[in-house]
Amino acid sequence: MCAESVRPRFDILGIGNAIVDVVAPVHEAFLSRHGMRKGAMTLIAAADADRIYAAMPPGQETSGGSAANTCAVAAHLGARAAYLGKVADDQLGRVFRHDISSVGVHHPTRPLAGGAPTARCLILVTPDGQRTMNTFLGACINFDEEDIDIAVVSDAAVTYLEGYLFDPPAAQRAFRKAAAAAHSAGRRVALSLSDPFCVDRHRAAFRDLVAADVDILFANEAEVCSLYERNEFEAAVSHARQDVTLACLTRSEQGSLVVSGADIIEVPPVPTEVIDTTGAGDAYAAGFLTGLTAGRTLAQCGQLGSIAAAEVISHYGARPQRDLRGETLALGS
Amino acid sequence: MCAESVRPRFDILGIGNAIVDVVAPVHEAFLSRHGMRKGAMTLIAAADADRIYAAMPPGQETSGGSAANTCAVAAHLGARAAYLGKVADDQLGRVFRHDISSVGVHHPTRPLAGGAPTARCLILVTPDGQRTMNTFLGACINFDEEDIDIAVVSDAAVTYLEGYLFDPPAAQRAFRKAAAAAHSAGRRVALSLSDPFCVDRHRAAFRDLVAADVDILFANEAEVCSLYERNEFEAAVSHARQDVTLACLTRSEQGSLVVSGADIIEVPPVPTEVIDTTGAGDAYAAGFLTGLTAGRTLAQCGQLGSIAAAEVISHYGARPQRDLRGETLALGS
Repeated sequence: MCAESVRPRFDILGIGNAIVDVVAPVHEAFLSRHGMRKGAMTLIAAADADRIYAAMPPGQETSGGSAANTCAVAAHLGARAAYLGKVADDQLGRVFRHDISSVGVHHPTRPLAGGAPTARCLILVTPDGQRTMNTFLGACINFDEEDIDIAVVSDAAVTYLEGYLFDPPAAQRAFRKAAAAAHSAGRRVALSLSDPFCVDRHRAAFRDLVAADVDILFANEAEVCSLYERNEFEAAVSHARQDVTLACLTRSEQGSLVVSGADIIEVPPVPTEVIDTTGAGDAYAAGFLTGLTAGRTLAQCGQLGSIAAAEVISHYGARPQRDLRGETLALGS
Repeated sequence: MCAESVRPRFDILGIGNAIVDVVAPVHEAFLSRHGMRKGAMTLIAAADADRIYAAMPPGQETSGGSAANTCAVAAHLGARAAYLGKVADDQLGRVFRHDISSVGVHHPTRPLAGGAPTARCLILVTPDGQRTMNTFLGACINFDEEDIDIAVVSDAAVTYLEGYLFDPPAAQRAFRKAAAAAHSAGRRVALSLSDPFCVDRHRAAFRDLVAADVDILFANEAEVCSLYERNEFEAAVSHARQDVTLACLTRSEQGSLVVSGADIIEVPPVPTEVIDTTGAGDAYAAGFLTGLTAGRTLAQCGQLGSIAAAEVISHYGARPQRDLRGETLALGS
């Protein structure tokens, strides 16, 4: 009997950095005063985190982490999701575990005891809705192969890897282990490139992984151009088409392209007021994969991605503030 | 030289329970399933906090605490504020201290080391915008006379006491000490009744304090009726008029009454969409006291209270999401 003939327990398994977001609105001047690269994710040490936090206005704490956001949004859309990512055994770690579990996402990773604290991302939102992220990785540094739960990977239709997890040193081996386990169970592997600077930091490893192990690639224009070191989006698209079965390429207010072999499907965005773009890409991936694992057409998958992205950019924070199950059902089947 | 002839360092000194709010939207059924009294603040033990939290949807963590909210809103309105209230030396305590300090509120209270964790309030917001609060007092239990910083009290135009602080056992003595210090420095003492059930729990102590030590009373209809055990609002108003110099009595969507001797000023509300009423009374007090300490008329003070309350009920969370200094200036002088 082929493994795919049994419906797996999970539609989506996310693997990534388990992070609590601290979100605050700032003016552009704050970014320049602190030498921050607008729109990017920068890794910071504990001392920098303290310094930036001390300078920040009052924040709102919510659970974050790119792949964790994707899993939470997917659960809100009705998908059955699981998540692997490491928090510490501390107050913010308990907040993270509560938030992801309470939307029904299975989260078996054991918290780190007696080491670094739970990771935090200081997210500064400028009046144009753009977010600039400063991540202190904390307990995520300790995520390694041991944390890859083979039983869960084998029982998930899609294992979704977050590019940011290339930053902690042991996680690349964990990625390889997860991808191998997924494929040997007849499942699919998806990867999000996360950030063009993250791609810069780990380009060779990303290229290897994409070519060898990735079936579904999520990226925005800057990320896919950085991956293939191309200046033109079209050239990068051609390259991606050869590497992966499906490439979902987001283009902000221009919507997205779904590239499948020789086919290119243009997906329009869902118009909304932009308050905070944090998590837009994560939500898009959630919508797309929820549709895909429910057997929808690629155009419907893209549409569900656009709907989910529009919901999370219409308020502060990267997770939905309302149930989205109706949106999935409204697509028909 | 009379103490009042020197402008004090602070306009408002708040004293209260230092709490981090965990806010989540729920349906009415959640409240009945957990036997909660809608709209009230209930004190809960650590085990109840764990049980309710486990059942709650994902939350948003923001700093709260009634008097702390008042100080934060007052700072947003341009007042010079200080705050006394006890957190633990833990992650949520650091969040609380960051948030209140970063809006410019002086917070000299030393965190509790090695005892209970920072207090949390699990706030469930129903679709009508009403909030039902479950407070685990944690480190607040340890707030006592030692924490009353006489130098700060003497240097604040108004010392504002939060009624909820009657719940921790040692805090009543702290209130008396603060009131005595304020009056001997020629300053004024304000009290918020906080909650009709809190008044029920401590009616005799509240009545004594109001009659002996309070110059400015903040209460809503249910609270002032509970204090004086009157069924008719008018009867309670007459009683309050004899006890205090100024009584500011809020009436939800009907606005507020400012009672000063024989004068009664009716203050209209500022219409807004109601998302979450958490902190409405705290914000009203902030607006009123900011106006009062800036020498505005009582009608202007009430108007500033209405403006501040409208801002905080228009979004989740009890603290402003925008700077309100312009509102104070717009009143003229």
